Amino acid sequence: MHYNFMNDYNECAHERVLEAIARANREQDDSYGLDSRCANARALIQARLGGAESDVHFLVGGTQTNLTIIAASIKPYQGVVCAVSGHINVHETGAIEATGHKVLSLPTDNGKITAQQIALYVAAHYADSTAEHMVQPGMVYLSQPTEVGTVYSKDELRAISRVCLLYGMPLYVDGARLGDSFAAEGADVFLPELAQYTSAFSIGGTKMGALLGEALVINDPTLKKDFRYHIKQRGGMLAKGRLLGIQFETLFADGLYDEIGRHAVKEAQRIASGVREKGYALFVDSPTNQVFPILPRDLLKSLADEFGYAFWQTFDEENDVVRFCTSWATPPEAVDALLKSIPAKQ
Amino acid sequence: MHYNFMNDYNECAHERVLEAIARANREQDDSYGLDSRCANARALIQARLGGAESDVHFLVGGTQTNLTIIAASIKPYQGVVCAVSGHINVHETGAIEATGHKVLSLPTDNGKITAQQIALYVAAHYADSTAEHMVQPGMVYLSQPTEVGTVYSKDELRAISRVCLLYGMPLYVDGARLGDSFAAEGADVFLPELAQYTSAFSIGGTKMGALLGEALVINDPTLKKDFRYHIKQRGGMLAKGRLLGIQFETLFADGLYDEIGRHAVKEAQRIASGVREKGYALFVDSPTNQVFPILPRDLLKSLADEFGYAFWQTFDEENDVVRFCTSWATPPEAVDALLKSIPAKQ
Amino acid sequence: MHYNFMNDYNECAHERVLEAIARANREQDDSYGLDSRCANARALIQARLGGAESDVHFLVGGTQTNLTIIAASIKPYQGVVCAVSGHINVHETGAIEATGHKVLSLPTDNGKITAQQIALYVAAHYADSTAEHMVQPGMVYLSQPTEVGTVYSKDELRAISRVCLLYGMPLYVDGARLGDSFAAEGADVFLPELAQYTSAFSIGGTKMGALLGEALVINDPTLKKDFRYHIKQRGGMLAKGRLLGIQFETLFADGLYDEIGRHAVKEAQRIASGVREKGYALFVDSPTNQVFPILPRDLLKSLADEFGYAFWQTFDEENDVVRFCTSWATPPEAVDALLKSIPAKQ
Amino acid sequence: MHYNFMNDYNECAHERVLEAIARANREQDDSYGLDSRCANARALIQARLGGAESDVHFLVGGTQTNLTIIAASIKPYQGVVCAVSGHINVHETGAIEATGHKVLSLPTDNGKITAQQIALYVAAHYADSTAEHMVQPGMVYLSQPTEVGTVYSKDELRAISRVCLLYGMPLYVDGARLGDSFAAEGADVFLPELAQYTSAFSIGGTKMGALLGEALVINDPTLKKDFRYHIKQRGGMLAKGRLLGIQFETLFADGLYDEIGRHAVKEAQRIASGVREKGYALFVDSPTNQVFPILPRDLLKSLADEFGYAFWQTFDEENDVVRFCTSWATPPEAVDALLKSIPAKQ
Repeated sequence: MHYNFMNDYNECAHERVLEAIARANREQDDSYGLDSRCANARALIQARLGGAESDVHFLVGGTQTNLTIIAASIKPYQGVVCAVSGHINVHETGAIEATGHKVLSLPTDNGKITAQQIALYVAAHYADSTAEHMVQPGMVYLSQPTEVGTVYSKDELRAISRVCLLYGMPLYVDGARLGDSFAAEGADVFLPELAQYTSAFSIGGTKMGALLGEALVINDPTLKKDFRYHIKQRGGMLAKGRLLGIQFETLFADGLYDEIGRHAVKEAQRIASGVREKGYALFVDSPTNQVFPILPRDLLKSLADEFGYAFWQTFDEENDVVRFCTSWATPPEAVDALLKSIPAKQ
Repeated sequence: MHYNFMNDYNECAHERVLEAIARANREQDDSYGLDSRCANARALIQARLGGAESDVHFLVGGTQTNLTIIAASIKPYQGVVCAVSGHINVHETGAIEATGHKVLSLPTDNGKITAQQIALYVAAHYADSTAEHMVQPGMVYLSQPTEVGTVYSKDELRAISRVCLLYGMPLYVDGARLGDSFAAEGADVFLPELAQYTSAFSIGGTKMGALLGEALVINDPTLKKDFRYHIKQRGGMLAKGRLLGIQFETLFADGLYDEIGRHAVKEAQRIASGVREKGYALFVDSPTNQVFPILPRDLLKSLADEFGYAFWQTFDEENDVVRFCTSWATPPEAVDALLKSIPAKQ
Repeated sequence: MHYNFMNDYNECAHERVLEAIARANREQDDSYGLDSRCANARALIQARLGGAESDVHFLVGGTQTNLTIIAASIKPYQGVVCAVSGHINVHETGAIEATGHKVLSLPTDNGKITAQQIALYVAAHYADSTAEHMVQPGMVYLSQPTEVGTVYSKDELRAISRVCLLYGMPLYVDGARLGDSFAAEGADVFLPELAQYTSAFSIGGTKMGALLGEALVINDPTLKKDFRYHIKQRGGMLAKGRLLGIQFETLFADGLYDEIGRHAVKEAQRIASGVREKGYALFVDSPTNQVFPILPRDLLKSLADEFGYAFWQTFDEENDVVRFCTSWATPPEAVDALLKSIPAKQ
Repeated sequence: MHYNFMNDYNECAHERVLEAIARANREQDDSYGLDSRCANARALIQARLGGAESDVHFLVGGTQTNLTIIAASIKPYQGVVCAVSGHINVHETGAIEATGHKVLSLPTDNGKITAQQIALYVAAHYADSTAEHMVQPGMVYLSQPTEVGTVYSKDELRAISRVCLLYGMPLYVDGARLGDSFAAEGADVFLPELAQYTSAFSIGGTKMGALLGEALVINDPTLKKDFRYHIKQRGGMLAKGRLLGIQFETLFADGLYDEIGRHAVKEAQRIASGVREKGYALFVDSPTNQVFPILPRDLLKSLADEFGYAFWQTFDEENDVVRFCTSWATPPEAVDALLKSIPAKQ
C-alpha cells in the first residue's frame, strides 16, 4: 500500500463538502461574501461561540488571514510577538514584514510561548529609556495547535490573554488546524474559550477538509469596523464568496468539522503509540495530528518506497526527526500498513 | 422567469470543471502548485502561446494577481500607468498602493488608453528637470477586455508594446475576462499576440467558468526569477494548488475556455442588438459580454422584479446607464425573456 | 546685479539662526529632541496657539513630516484627499504611496479645494454599494499657502474642518511656507486658527530662514500617543535634535518668523505690482511670496542673464508662465533691478 | 568638572564645520544636492576611494541612509542579514520592516558576524525544499565599527565580500562612526578597502563632527541608477543640500575627518587603559571610541554626579556594564578627571 503522510492537504476536500458545492452550483447568489451561504455559515459559527457577539469573515487562505488581521490591528511602529517557530516568522516569506511590521520572536522548544515570557518581554520594552527607538510589541500571535502540534490549555491561554489586556495588545490565534486541537486528549480550549480570551482567531478550512478557506472570527469590537476593506485590499476576498460559505456551512452544520479533527487525531495518535511501542522516541509530544518520531535513517529510506513523510531535522549521526501528518482522508489501513513496516527497535 | 444579469460570477463553476475536481478528489498530489495537475495545465497553456517560452503560475484571485506581478516588476520609486477607469485604480481598495506604488492614471472615455497617450506622459516625465521629485512611470497596465468591455486590437497593443520597450517599462495585461475578448467580433489579439507583445498577462478563471483562480503568464525573462516567492508572500499560493491546476486543465484541454467566451459574448450581443433594435442607445460600444444600455428609469424599475442588473451611472433626468453581464451560465431563455420585457422606445 | 529668484531656499539660513547655533555649539545636551532647546522652542510655539494643548515635534524635512503624520493618522485601506496640485500628489516621488496609502486628488485651478468638493467626494464614496472595493477617504491634506501661493481664509478652513469632523477625517495642513501665509494681505488664519481647526499642521522652517526642519503641531489628542516612535521609524528624528530646537527657538522667540514672512511677501508683492503695472498679467493671483507672471519668451531669455526664475508652464505661442520666489534673504535692490530689467508691455 | 560621556552627539558640530557654513551662508546655490558644494565634497571623497568609480550621495541621517539603500537594493521577498545587535535590527523602530523587508539576524557576542556564519545561513536557505516559503537572504548589513565598537579587519571584510558575491547579495556597511574605525589600533580597512569590498557604505557625519548628515557611497554599478528618486521618496533629500556638502567638504578637505576619529579614539582608549589599570575589566574589547567597563554600582552612582555615561546592561549582583563615549569634542581634561574619580579596585 502506498500512502503519503507528507501533510494534511495532499487530498482535495471532504466528499460532503464537494457535494454541497455541486448541489448549489447553479443557484445565483450575491458576490464577495455578501451571499446567503456565507450568512448561514457565519450564523452556524456564531452559534458555537458561547454567546460572544463576534464578526465572522471568510478569507481564501491562511497567510492572507494572518497578514490581514495583523496589519489591521497594529500601528506602523508596532510589531507582533510570537514563538520563533511561529508560522508567520518562518513560513510566510515575510508576508507580515511586507505589510510593514516586524515579527518579534520569542524562544520556545515546544512551539508554545508563555504568559510570563510575553510579560517580561513587553515590560522590558517599556522599561527601556530608548524604547522609542525600538519596535513596540503591539500584538501577540499564537498558533493552536502550534506548528509542532502542541496545544495551549485554557489556563495558559487565559494567562496570556491577561498579559495582553494589561498592555493593550490584541491577541490573535492562528487556527489553521484548529479542529485538531479540539480533538486532542484533555483539550479544554474550544470555540467559546477562543471567543472569550482572544481578540480574533481563525478557523482553518484547508487543513480540515475544505478545498480552501479560513474563517476569521473577530471578537474585539475595536477591530471590527470596516474589516471588509482590509480583506479586499489584501486580496483575500473571493468574487464567488459563496464557495467559502458553502464549505463552512457543511463543516459546521452537523459536526463535520469536529468529526474530521477526531479522525485525523485518532490516526495520528495510533502512529505515535505504535512508534513508541516499537521502542522509538518522539521528538515532540504532540497530542494532535502531527507525529514527530526519531527514526534511523536506514529505516526511513526503506519506508520511503511506500510512504510519504516530511523530513523535519537531523537528530544525530544515525537518526532523523520526521513528521507524519494525518487528515480526514487518511485511511486507517494506511496507518496499519505504516506501522507494520516499522520494525521494533533493537 | 427570474435571472440575475448583475455580473459573471453569480453562479459557481462550469459543470465540467466541477466534475474534474470531484474525479480527482482522492488523488494524493504535491502541494503549493508543484503538483502534476498544475504542470499539465501549464503545459496546455504554454502550447497555445505561439512558441513563447513563458512561465505560467496559478494564483487565487485577480486583485492578488495584479498586485503580485506589479509589485514584483517595478522599483520602489516607480508607479504603474493605467486608464483612470482601470480596475487597479478604482476597485481594488488601493491594493497597489498598499505595496508602495502609485497608480498613474490617464484619462479615457472608452476604458482604453493609447500608445500616444502613454508616450507623451512618459516623455513629459523624463523631460521635467524635477523628475526625481515625481513618481517615475515604471510599468503599463491594460485590461483586455477593459472594465467597459472594449477590446484592444493587435495594432493598438503592438503600438503600446513599442512605447513600453522604448522606455524600458514592462507591459502587463489584466485578462480577468480574457476569454470574452477572444470571442469579440473582429478580435485579433489571442494568446500568441499577448505572449509576443506583453511582459506578462493574466488569464482569468473566476469570470470564465472556474470556481476561482487566475493563470499568470510571464513572458519577460527578467520577471521570471523567484516568482513563487512573490506569490507566497502576497498570499496568492494555494496549499491545495491542484484545485487551480485541475480547473485550468479542464478549461484548456479541449477548448472549453473559448467555448465559454463565445457563449457569453453571443448572449450579451443578443441583448445589445435587441436593445438597439428597440430604439435604445448603448453607452459604450462593447463587443464582449458586458452591455451598457441607456434605459428609462421607469422601465428599469419594472425590469427589476425579474432581472438583476448593475446600476452604472446616471445618464440624464429620465435615464440611467445600467450593465447587463452574461457568462457561461446564462440561459438563452433568460436573454429572450429579458428582451421580451423591454418595450420598444416610443 | 545677479540674483536668483528660483526659490526660497537658495541661501542657507537667517544670520540670527546661524548665530544661535554657533553660540550653543559646545553646550552638552540630550539627544533626539529630548533636549532643553527643543523644550523651549516647543513652549514658545505652544504659547502662540491660543490656548490649545497641542504637542509639538521637530522633524528634519517637509516630505518626512507629511509622510509621517499621514501614515500615522490613517488605516491601511484609507487614502488622503488633496488638491491634484498638492505637494504630496506631485512632488514627493510617491512618498505617501510608499507608506501604503493612495492619494485621492481633487481638481483645482488655484491650488485650493473647497469644503463642498470634499463633502461631495466623501459622500459619494459612502453612497456607493461597492465602497469596500475602493480606497476610503480617511484624511484631508491642505497646503497653506498652496503650491501656487494662494491662501485659505478662516471661513474656508472652518468649513473644511466641519466636513472633516462630520466624516471622522483628520485634517492636516502642510505649512512649508506657513509664515508667508501670515503676511498675506487680508490673512485671517494664524496659529490659533490652525490649532483650532486642524488635527495637525506643520510650521515650515527650511523656507522660512532655517537651515532645515519643520515643526509638527498635533492638536488632535488621538494622534498624539507614541508619536515619537513614528518619527524615529520614518527617519525624521535627528540625533542632534537641538539643532532644530535652537532654530525654532530663534524663529519664535521675538517675532523673527513673522518678520521673515513679511519681508518675503513684501518683496514678492513688489514684483507682482511692478509686473502688472508694466502691463503683464499674472497667471495666479498669489498674495504670498511666489509670483507667477506671464512673460514673453524673448524677455525671459534676456532676463536669464541676470536673474534666476523657475519655468512653470507654457502659456501660449509667445509667452511662458514663470515663477519668481522671494525669501528672508532677497535684497530689495534685487527686486528693483529685476523690475528695471522688465520693459513695459507694448 | 562636569562632562557627559553619554554619547558622541552631545555637542553640536566641530567649529571648522560651523565656520564653513557661516562663511557660505549668503552664497546662492542650487538645491536638493545639485549644488557646487556637494559636487566638491563628492569629488573629495571620490579621490580617496583608491580609484573606484563610485557615486556619492548626501542624506540627512543614519536611519534614513540605511533604509534607503536597503530598500533600494533588494526585492520584495528578500531580507537583509545582520548581527542580532545590528542597529537596523534593534534601534531603528522597525524602519527596515516598514519598507517591507525582514531583518534576518545572526547571533554574535562581539557585534560582528563572520563569513562562515553568513555562508552557512544562506546555504541552508537554498538547500531547504520549502525555501520559497521563507524570506530569501538578499543582502548583508555590517556596521564598521560595530555597535559595541569592534572593527572588521580587511581579511574578515574580504571573506564576507566573497560570500556575498557567491550568492549575489549586495554588501552594505553602515559607517555611522566610520572615522573611529580608521583610528583603531591595527586598522587595515580604510576607504579604498570599503570601495573595493562593499556594494555600498556610509560615511557618518553626525557622530564625526557634523551637525547632521551621512555620505552614502555606492560602488556597485547596478545600484546607482535613479538613486536620487529613492532618496527623495524616503525623505532623505535636503532642500538646502549644500548644508551637507559644505560639511563633508570641510571634513574631507584636509584630513579633519581622520583627525576627529584619532582624537575620539585616543581619549576613549585612555579611559580603557585607565580603567584596566585600576583593576576593572572591560565587557567588550573595543578599539574605537566606545568603552564598556564593568564597574560596581556604588561607584557608578557616585560618578554620576560629575559624569554622564550610558547604562548598557546588568553584569552581576554588584556590577553593571556602562558605556563611555568620546568624540571630537571631548576635552582631555574630562578624561583625566573621570579617571581620577575612579579608585583602584580593591
